Amino acid sequence: MAEATPFPLNAWYAAAWDYEIKRELAPRTICDKDVVLYRRSDGQVVALEDACWHRLLPLSLGHLKDDQVVCGYHGLIFNSAGRCTYMPAQETINPSACVRAFPIAEKHRLVWVWMGDPALADPDKVPDFHWNSDPPWVGEGGTFYSLQCDYRLVIDNLMDLTHETYVHVGSIGDEAITRNPFEVTHTDRKVTVARWMENIEPPPFWARLLGRPGHVDRWQIIHFEAPGVVAGDVGVALTGTGARDGNRAEGVNGFFLAAVTPETRTSCHYFWNFVRNFRTDDQALTKSLNLAHVNQGRGVYDQDHDVLEAQQKAINKNPRQPFYNLNIDAGALWARRLIDRMLAAERGAPHPAGSRPDLAAE
Amino acid sequence: MAEATPFPLNAWYAAAWDYEIKRELAPRTICDKDVVLYRRSDGQVVALEDACWHRLLPLSLGHLKDDQVVCGYHGLIFNSAGRCTYMPAQETINPSACVRAFPIAEKHRLVWVWMGDPALADPDKVPDFHWNSDPPWVGEGGTFYSLQCDYRLVIDNLMDLTHETYVHVGSIGDEAITRNPFEVTHTDRKVTVARWMENIEPPPFWARLLGRPGHVDRWQIIHFEAPGVVAGDVGVALTGTGARDGNRAEGVNGFFLAAVTPETRTSCHYFWNFVRNFRTDDQALTKSLNLAHVNQGRGVYDQDHDVLEAQQKAINKNPRQPFYNLNIDAGALWARRLIDRMLAAERGAPHPAGSRPDLAAE
Amino acid sequence: MAEATPFPLNAWYAAAWDYEIKRELAPRTICDKDVVLYRRSDGQVVALEDACWHRLLPLSLGHLKDDQVVCGYHGLIFNSAGRCTYMPAQETINPSACVRAFPIAEKHRLVWVWMGDPALADPDKVPDFHWNSDPPWVGEGGTFYSLQCDYRLVIDNLMDLTHETYVHVGSIGDEAITRNPFEVTHTDRKVTVARWMENIEPPPFWARLLGRPGHVDRWQIIHFEAPGVVAGDVGVALTGTGARDGNRAEGVNGFFLAAVTPETRTSCHYFWNFVRNFRTDDQALTKSLNLAHVNQGRGVYDQDHDVLEAQQKAINKNPRQPFYNLNIDAGALWARRLIDRMLAAERGAPHPAGSRPDLAAE
Repeated sequence: MAEATPFPLNAWYAAAWDYEIKRELAPRTICDKDVVLYRRSDGQVVALEDACWHRLLPLSLGHLKDDQVVCGYHGLIFNSAGRCTYMPAQETINPSACVRAFPIAEKHRLVWVWMGDPALADPDKVPDFHWNSDPPWVGEGGTFYSLQCDYRLVIDNLMDLTHETYVHVGSIGDEAITRNPFEVTHTDRKVTVARWMENIEPPPFWARLLGRPGHVDRWQIIHFEAPGVVAGDVGVALTGTGARDGNRAEGVNGFFLAAVTPETRTSCHYFWNFVRNFRTDDQALTKSLNLAHVNQGRGVYDQDHDVLEAQQKAINKNPRQPFYNLNIDAGALWARRLIDRMLAAERGAPHPAGSRPDLAAE
Repeated sequence: MAEATPFPLNAWYAAAWDYEIKRELAPRTICDKDVVLYRRSDGQVVALEDACWHRLLPLSLGHLKDDQVVCGYHGLIFNSAGRCTYMPAQETINPSACVRAFPIAEKHRLVWVWMGDPALADPDKVPDFHWNSDPPWVGEGGTFYSLQCDYRLVIDNLMDLTHETYVHVGSIGDEAITRNPFEVTHTDRKVTVARWMENIEPPPFWARLLGRPGHVDRWQIIHFEAPGVVAGDVGVALTGTGARDGNRAEGVNGFFLAAVTPETRTSCHYFWNFVRNFRTDDQALTKSLNLAHVNQGRGVYDQDHDVLEAQQKAINKNPRQPFYNLNIDAGALWARRLIDRMLAAERGAPHPAGSRPDLAAE
Repeated sequence: MAEATPFPLNAWYAAAWDYEIKRELAPRTICDKDVVLYRRSDGQVVALEDACWHRLLPLSLGHLKDDQVVCGYHGLIFNSAGRCTYMPAQETINPSACVRAFPIAEKHRLVWVWMGDPALADPDKVPDFHWNSDPPWVGEGGTFYSLQCDYRLVIDNLMDLTHETYVHVGSIGDEAITRNPFEVTHTDRKVTVARWMENIEPPPFWARLLGRPGHVDRWQIIHFEAPGVVAGDVGVALTGTGARDGNRAEGVNGFFLAAVTPETRTSCHYFWNFVRNFRTDDQALTKSLNLAHVNQGRGVYDQDHDVLEAQQKAINKNPRQPFYNLNIDAGALWARRLIDRMLAAERGAPHPAGSRPDLAAE
């Protein structure tokens, strides 16, 4: 555990689905820090440090009183800015008495939190996750809370889909993925991995969704935005109908969406969805696509889950660094490189200033 | 865990209720040391180090033979002074072969053990806990063994009863506690916190016990004796009947009693009782008062239990020292100051000498 | 955990019963290293490092393809020498891509693995365990996998049978064991402890097996071979029939067999058997002898199991070194001395060279 923190703090991380945050206290651990979330009566979501200024009892064990939090031990009250507004049995309130308040942005059906320097928290920089909320895309999604692996292992997993051939055989896995080349491009904050598999037999999952016989062109175009968001543009169209040139009318198209948030150094919250732009009114299809991904251990993400947690255990026992790499890792390596740059930039900069500088530097 | 031991060793700590120690081996961990307790045939309680001199097997896994302990592995026998009196297959006994024997005092229905220098163990210095045994006081009590918090958090809890307003709302909690001032006095070993709440509506718990209508004067006079004993004189009397001046005839009076013993640095044994001096023959009342305190998670001490363990977890994750304090903490701060003085005195002194000096210095 | 590794690596350790290793991947942790075992189609057992070269996923989560192992994450394939023979989506294979392969010997119904320098792995040096496989000896046996104690505590236990008097009273335990002297002899790799108890009442276990009235001469001749094998020649014969002079015709004879393999510093795998050379066709007797040793907590080895795990816990809490010793420990002390010599020799020697020198030095 002596390794430097593997997650940048100056970043927006998904903390919850919007519907999960109500007029009650919801605890989460994010970037190794305990946070309590709630929604004010005006609808604004609040995130406070989940430890009372006085004796550290988690505020999430207390209760809401209007828009403020009452500690469940001695009744100290904190407003939504984290400032203490009541102390039991005394008139004067210590002006330094507060808990950290973390900037929040609500966007694309998720609540995003900023664990670093509040002055840098720009809501316009919430990662692009619009497929999760905007028409024509439809999906249900879910969360693996406290998945027991470094969040970067999930990124690795999603940035290289050759693993589908081995982990997801019989559904989306296919020899064609491994056989076909891919292209990696990047900017300072984004990486794209694009692979086209032309004129192939569709794998079972896609054959069912397409519902038409014949060979297809299959695409996987994965968009990563550092440090924790992946959106994968995936689909198939009948061969010869011009999908690669931009005409997807004779095909079916989905996006797998992942917002991966560090919980601790070796665990993460994985908000996922699979959205599509066809048969969007078909609720039964929405349900069945969700179950194809997570279904009591039998979905494709459940399969990844097992692999990722086993991999983390192996890393704990074999602290060999860095990994050996293959050509297929090019996308994941670029993703990690962008994360590393964010980390280096943060370490070079002065410590994040906040309402509690002494804690911010912890 | 690098912090210095937070508990003095030269002190009497409650190890068991007297009825728990019989003609059989009873293990306890006290001040981070494994101890085995039993009662000799003459009634005297014995406490030995619970690890055989030879191969460290806990002696509590062996058995009693008359008044000696036979190790369950190779049959070494230790007398009640900890000296080895038998070794298998050899005539000569290594004269240094022994386990530590800890001084014991049996008083006020509890067995007290002294984990430090035996030469300093004065039975006259067992903390005053006479309400637990002496007429007119009646109560049943119980123990939280291995409560997962630093014993000092229990002391903090009992030395500031404003927490009742928040943790025990609907039973003994009441805004009046928070509203009314208190006085703290202390000697070198004791702290007293006294609060009077005059002319108030009694909270539900006390209203039921008093059984008479009208406003009351309520008192909470808490006596701490370092390092681990608290006796709280609590009650209500009809307003205007002179309770504050010493006449409690028109009221009801109880004592909450706590003997808190470090198990490890972050866990403790909490021997508690609630005794009263009225309706002392009413067994049903005794039972119901016990259940009011501990009742499968619904009693007031169960509520404290949850808070204390959550607080310890938060401290483990947020190693911020020292705590920030409020006016209400004055009593707890004095209690901790007396404990700290005991610790400083012990550290200044030469290491406790015992029958096994090499272990005593561990 | 800072203590030097307590197990030599240049030694044959039992990894599995031969029937356990089939055409499928079987994980084991041996000497703190994860290993995957399987049987090739030609019958040869293979042991590979159980962590893929690429991303460390345990290979045991993958599958066999002919005689090679396919990683369950990205499909890398390793042959039975540990060399990578396939990488997904690339033609050229990194020539350094491999996992460690550990030498294997199959002998005496067990699969033995060599965790140290492969160049030193001489199959002729597999410990003598012939009673486990060769006529006239018959027995069934079993394994405690992941027994939670240092493997040397099992050796201590078996090298001093006075513990039977206390741990196994009512079956094989007997005051005679403690009363009678023993002799210890040793070579550079072996220790023998021999005890004869002449003209005694047989303990219940042996009385039943002998099935004849009268006093007996009982023997316990324990053979240790460093670092982890014990074979105990035990039995009784009618007194006066010359057992001590070599004539065991009027008695019954068994061997308790133990191959003890370090799993971690504080856990081990304990392959055991109890074999006999009489009534060898009596399957019911074979079964009942097995149950006498391990039977859901009621067998004699179950009793040892409890003691050994309690002892390890006590050692963890009381890091007192070295142990204090008794005369009865002479055999165990010689066993530990031989182990220590192996350890010293290994540390003096250059680091084991292997197919992966960087890992071998971990």
